[in-house]
Amino acid sequence: MAGSTFGTQFKITTWGESHGKGIGVVIDGCPAGLSLCEDDIQKFLNRRKPGQSRFSTPRKEDDTVQILSGIFEGKTTGTPISLVVFNENQRSRDYGDIATYYRPGHADYTFDMKYGFRDYRGGGRSSGRETIGRVAAGAVAAKILEELGISFLTYSRAIGPVSIEKTAEELLSNDTTSLKQQILSNPLYMPETEAADKAQDFLEECMAQHNSAGGIIECIITGVPAGLGEPVFEKLDANLAKAIFSIGAVKGFEIGDGFAVAASTGLQNNDAFCTQDGTVATATNHAGGILGGISNGAPIIFRAAIKPTPSIASTQQTVNKSGEEIEVSIRGRHDPIIVPRAVVVVESMAALVLADALLTNMGSKIESLLKLY
Amino acid sequence: MAGSTFGTQFKITTWGESHGKGIGVVIDGCPAGLSLCEDDIQKFLNRRKPGQSRFSTPRKEDDTVQILSGIFEGKTTGTPISLVVFNENQRSRDYGDIATYYRPGHADYTFDMKYGFRDYRGGGRSSGRETIGRVAAGAVAAKILEELGISFLTYSRAIGPVSIEKTAEELLSNDTTSLKQQILSNPLYMPETEAADKAQDFLEECMAQHNSAGGIIECIITGVPAGLGEPVFEKLDANLAKAIFSIGAVKGFEIGDGFAVAASTGLQNNDAFCTQDGTVATATNHAGGILGGISNGAPIIFRAAIKPTPSIASTQQTVNKSGEEIEVSIRGRHDPIIVPRAVVVVESMAALVLADALLTNMGSKIESLLKLY
Amino acid sequence: MAGSTFGTQFKITTWGESHGKGIGVVIDGCPAGLSLCEDDIQKFLNRRKPGQSRFSTPRKEDDTVQILSGIFEGKTTGTPISLVVFNENQRSRDYGDIATYYRPGHADYTFDMKYGFRDYRGGGRSSGRETIGRVAAGAVAAKILEELGISFLTYSRAIGPVSIEKTAEELLSNDTTSLKQQILSNPLYMPETEAADKAQDFLEECMAQHNSAGGIIECIITGVPAGLGEPVFEKLDANLAKAIFSIGAVKGFEIGDGFAVAASTGLQNNDAFCTQDGTVATATNHAGGILGGISNGAPIIFRAAIKPTPSIASTQQTVNKSGEEIEVSIRGRHDPIIVPRAVVVVESMAALVLADALLTNMGSKIESLLKLY
Amino acid sequence: MAGSTFGTQFKITTWGESHGKGIGVVIDGCPAGLSLCEDDIQKFLNRRKPGQSRFSTPRKEDDTVQILSGIFEGKTTGTPISLVVFNENQRSRDYGDIATYYRPGHADYTFDMKYGFRDYRGGGRSSGRETIGRVAAGAVAAKILEELGISFLTYSRAIGPVSIEKTAEELLSNDTTSLKQQILSNPLYMPETEAADKAQDFLEECMAQHNSAGGIIECIITGVPAGLGEPVFEKLDANLAKAIFSIGAVKGFEIGDGFAVAASTGLQNNDAFCTQDGTVATATNHAGGILGGISNGAPIIFRAAIKPTPSIASTQQTVNKSGEEIEVSIRGRHDPIIVPRAVVVVESMAALVLADALLTNMGSKIESLLKLY
Repeated sequence: MAGSTFGTQFKITTWGESHGKGIGVVIDGCPAGLSLCEDDIQKFLNRRKPGQSRFSTPRKEDDTVQILSGIFEGKTTGTPISLVVFNENQRSRDYGDIATYYRPGHADYTFDMKYGFRDYRGGGRSSGRETIGRVAAGAVAAKILEELGISFLTYSRAIGPVSIEKTAEELLSNDTTSLKQQILSNPLYMPETEAADKAQDFLEECMAQHNSAGGIIECIITGVPAGLGEPVFEKLDANLAKAIFSIGAVKGFEIGDGFAVAASTGLQNNDAFCTQDGTVATATNHAGGILGGISNGAPIIFRAAIKPTPSIASTQQTVNKSGEEIEVSIRGRHDPIIVPRAVVVVESMAALVLADALLTNMGSKIESLLKLY
Repeated sequence: MAGSTFGTQFKITTWGESHGKGIGVVIDGCPAGLSLCEDDIQKFLNRRKPGQSRFSTPRKEDDTVQILSGIFEGKTTGTPISLVVFNENQRSRDYGDIATYYRPGHADYTFDMKYGFRDYRGGGRSSGRETIGRVAAGAVAAKILEELGISFLTYSRAIGPVSIEKTAEELLSNDTTSLKQQILSNPLYMPETEAADKAQDFLEECMAQHNSAGGIIECIITGVPAGLGEPVFEKLDANLAKAIFSIGAVKGFEIGDGFAVAASTGLQNNDAFCTQDGTVATATNHAGGILGGISNGAPIIFRAAIKPTPSIASTQQTVNKSGEEIEVSIRGRHDPIIVPRAVVVVESMAALVLADALLTNMGSKIESLLKLY
Repeated sequence: MAGSTFGTQFKITTWGESHGKGIGVVIDGCPAGLSLCEDDIQKFLNRRKPGQSRFSTPRKEDDTVQILSGIFEGKTTGTPISLVVFNENQRSRDYGDIATYYRPGHADYTFDMKYGFRDYRGGGRSSGRETIGRVAAGAVAAKILEELGISFLTYSRAIGPVSIEKTAEELLSNDTTSLKQQILSNPLYMPETEAADKAQDFLEECMAQHNSAGGIIECIITGVPAGLGEPVFEKLDANLAKAIFSIGAVKGFEIGDGFAVAASTGLQNNDAFCTQDGTVATATNHAGGILGGISNGAPIIFRAAIKPTPSIASTQQTVNKSGEEIEVSIRGRHDPIIVPRAVVVVESMAALVLADALLTNMGSKIESLLKLY
Repeated sequence: MAGSTFGTQFKITTWGESHGKGIGVVIDGCPAGLSLCEDDIQKFLNRRKPGQSRFSTPRKEDDTVQILSGIFEGKTTGTPISLVVFNENQRSRDYGDIATYYRPGHADYTFDMKYGFRDYRGGGRSSGRETIGRVAAGAVAAKILEELGISFLTYSRAIGPVSIEKTAEELLSNDTTSLKQQILSNPLYMPETEAADKAQDFLEECMAQHNSAGGIIECIITGVPAGLGEPVFEKLDANLAKAIFSIGAVKGFEIGDGFAVAASTGLQNNDAFCTQDGTVATATNHAGGILGGISNGAPIIFRAAIKPTPSIASTQQTVNKSGEEIEVSIRGRHDPIIVPRAVVVVESMAALVLADALLTNMGSKIESLLKLY
């Protein structure tokens, strides 16, 4: 199946392998007339670039994006935007070992089962580098959203067992500009200093033990107009769930109160409607901004659980291609945790879902057609 | 947007409103030659039918399915299978009240924002009755899976704060035929007697307080061949996430260890590969049967968090269409909990995802084409 | 493959077989707020109903449409519109003969090759009755187009070797209301009396010889705003070509000057731009209203070639399922020509393409998003 | 709308403008294990390269393809294949003139209407260079078809008023290897020497008059198994029609006897079934290899009408962006005819349709699933 395309009207197609010639994305369906330059995209890519702290792989990759099409005189033309990051780090290397066995927690075995063989160099298509295309496209989507007053606050809620204490609502009550600054300046993208410090201690310990850690990313989207999303299969939350779950290491997704609703009651969990500044609003936001699959105007709040990096130097049991049980230890320059670098990936996927929802929703009423034509 | 179609090769399109003439589904892309009769489908619909215990709405609806096309001499022909359940319960009634205000926790407000107005009779298209089409189609998908040795064990893991104690693995180690029997014979679809009893007590209390409850549904799928799902956006778990999140009341989805991976480590969370009866297997199943978006042959295990029924008789604050803040109490015959009836909906959506994955994966290798043509 | 769905944003899914319980269509993505009743649809269906002249099958079928969902208080709600025509004419009959051999010019053999067997009753899914769903949906699409000032003039240009003489442009220069009246009142839907008379004589002869005839349908669409269609694969003419070629008996499609361009030159074929009433227009319309896949505001003009009805009473050579060569003569009440009844099918498919193009084009400019949100 | 993607399971996405950095395509859904190298693709691109005869633009473009992803150790991996041709000829030039007015027969005006402005350099996205991506992808599709014994014979049937005399069937009765050789060695890709000579004389005359010519391309596909294509909207001929009509200059498409069926009769037009070497075949091939939208095993034969190149040096009337009527003469190195260079584009689009049909048809019978899983 052709599974590298995402979106209906704002549609992206990604390509590329970890150690191939490059990683790229084609964005199709971007409205014409949007100001866009390489810098807009590079800014996003820099947030996922490795080597920015001692908690990410020391591999040196500049990940410089080039725009190959779709822009004319600084504006999108409405035709496909082709973006590419050429791989610098593709020097010939001996991968022979990895080729012969299945790394636990990786997609080596499942690729072999599906395709009969695999490009084993650095994980090939299942490498985290695949997300470069998503982030580059997400930057473009985010630029559209910005024009409409929609913005994101995405950060690490938990690193291993260490969580921040403030709720999403409490964070939102702060000045978000300085909050965003704090998040970006922090190697773990955590919006609380104390938690960030504890988390760093925890990660040091993990690294000393040749182990790795997971965590939770939270994303808050403000300024979303009410009415986006479709009532049945294309619910806005269903599309967010798919988008986020399509990121390699995600094992859980929840919106609003999420799994906590299971032990709640209707009386606690229903958000009362009220009026605010003359428009309808909700007094609380247990729903996370979506009711019946459609945005209600409140901030959209969701969380994703990220598993610990599977590549660890500790000894593990596995099987080689001849079916023999063996012991392995994954050498190489791996992230002890991918949560901080995945923050911008989560934000990018969410931006793609919203840009698509904005476009597909334009014909929901006959009066909108009469307004445009 | 046209959001009532789901799937790529095994594609369903649902239609119908709670109090319209009926609810239906068109299944397109079902392979020819599958034995299928109305009973195969009715069996599934009966599991979501209301009025089966005092924990579901006492509304009397038979929900009898009719096959209108796509079957000839007891077999699917490969052409669209149109299924319909005509509504019995559509007597003219006074809905005037509901039309004027927005029920908390419901899609009334968001429908109005999106479409300008709404069919307010019984929730219209956002009613739980919309799932009839999904379940009818899911029964057909499940029949295909059965032919290939794939089967389901789906049940309530938690009702409100009451959870079963056995893990999915422990449940699987039992005789699944009698376990399935136990689940089906239990009004709450819980596979542990003690938990089921406690849960019933909890629900009684909820009902006495005019309140409602949520819970968690777990689904285990066994017999899935390794190699299903696509490596990037069409990951098998991403499609399951979307499928499950497209069910009205779902607020969380997780696979394998799910949110618990956040506090785990690589060493704990990686499933070691081993050999079992000559084939590759995993010693543990933290991943929930999917690696890199592709099935690895182990049981697929996922959970969905279901919110408490929003329709409650307790007094709530809301706003009417004129923007005035008012107090309401939702009368009518509502389920105090929808978890038990949603079990078969979850199973059906998962079956649809797997049937589609089986079909879209057929061309993953050139040798498969040479085998078939 | 799931091939019974058409369209991207205005999406229809048809189902049903000639002699099954009924024929239907689900329309998904119709904007909310459009006035719609069964009469709007019946009007279109009546144009394809059999038994209206001695040049169509004398089978008596009322083909009465029922709306099962998607309409509330006389308006579309934005949710799926399910339409059904129950088959009256499905009395049990002996089809045994047809089941055993392959009718020349029909899809009997190809269905068997694809699916392993077929519903042989009256052609099953490959019957002309399948177009009922298309026409019902086309009526809804046409209603949207009407709101935007887009209208159709569709008629038989040729019946067998008899063609009308006036060009599309000449026809357009008349009063189109009376022209439409003339077309509808004519059993062959031809807009020239003399040609229609000759064509009737020709058909009488065909019928006397147990033979059948083909013809050419022309469709003119006026009022289409400039800018619809996409520049590469989703060209407006490409989508019209697919839509029209998906109708059973179509063997050719051309737009504007069509095949005549092959022997033309650039100087003759280019349409000079000029200004008319202050806006840009073309002095001629060789292009048929589309340039580079995008509408230019001139009338869209296309033609479809329809093959002679394959069911004829004359003796023909064929093969039975045991591979023996045999002689057959197709008995039954068949149309000696399907062109007149196909006129509304062509118009319906074109309406579906345009409705979809209007919806998918709404986000072509960033300023359109700023206008709507 | 996102209109640069084509196909369902074998899916391509093209990008790039005439005078941008390059032109490319991403192929997604190509089965794993196919041998593929740059030479396989270059061979196809060379057939559309300019400057090969005095009847094509003297622009010098090497159009050298690079594979950026999806191949490992000489075989496709099942992941996206990214192909790019960097533009050599993008030197800065003065396009100021073209920017200010609308060239007759081009998409300048319609792009402005749709997007608000356009990349006017060399036609931008609506340039013939856009077909590079189609041809590169078509080469890959053709390689899959070759593995299954499906092959193409594509050539110019008519150049302006000069047609070849032999029918498709007559051509097929020759040795096709030497016929293919003759076609490729001929600057006009015509399989008859006498016609080719006359056509060259005709083109010389056109060029002398600063005029241009059109023509007809015919494509014959042999070895297609019976059973491909879907019975309703995804008919094999409907998808071919769309594919071919999505090529810039196509104004007509017909299959088998095409428009000639209009004046034929059922008795003449029906292809009698017979047995040949123990399998079912047709005695004639008026249908062009497709019945009811599904291949019947006979050669698929279709034709496309190509309009004369709109860029001509003769003086033409047009309008500038200020709405003034002006006279223009299009200077530059333009093809006096695009038919010969479009031959491989037609073949490529047809190959894409067939590769997709082979993949989407794999699940048409339940027994095929049982065979593969």
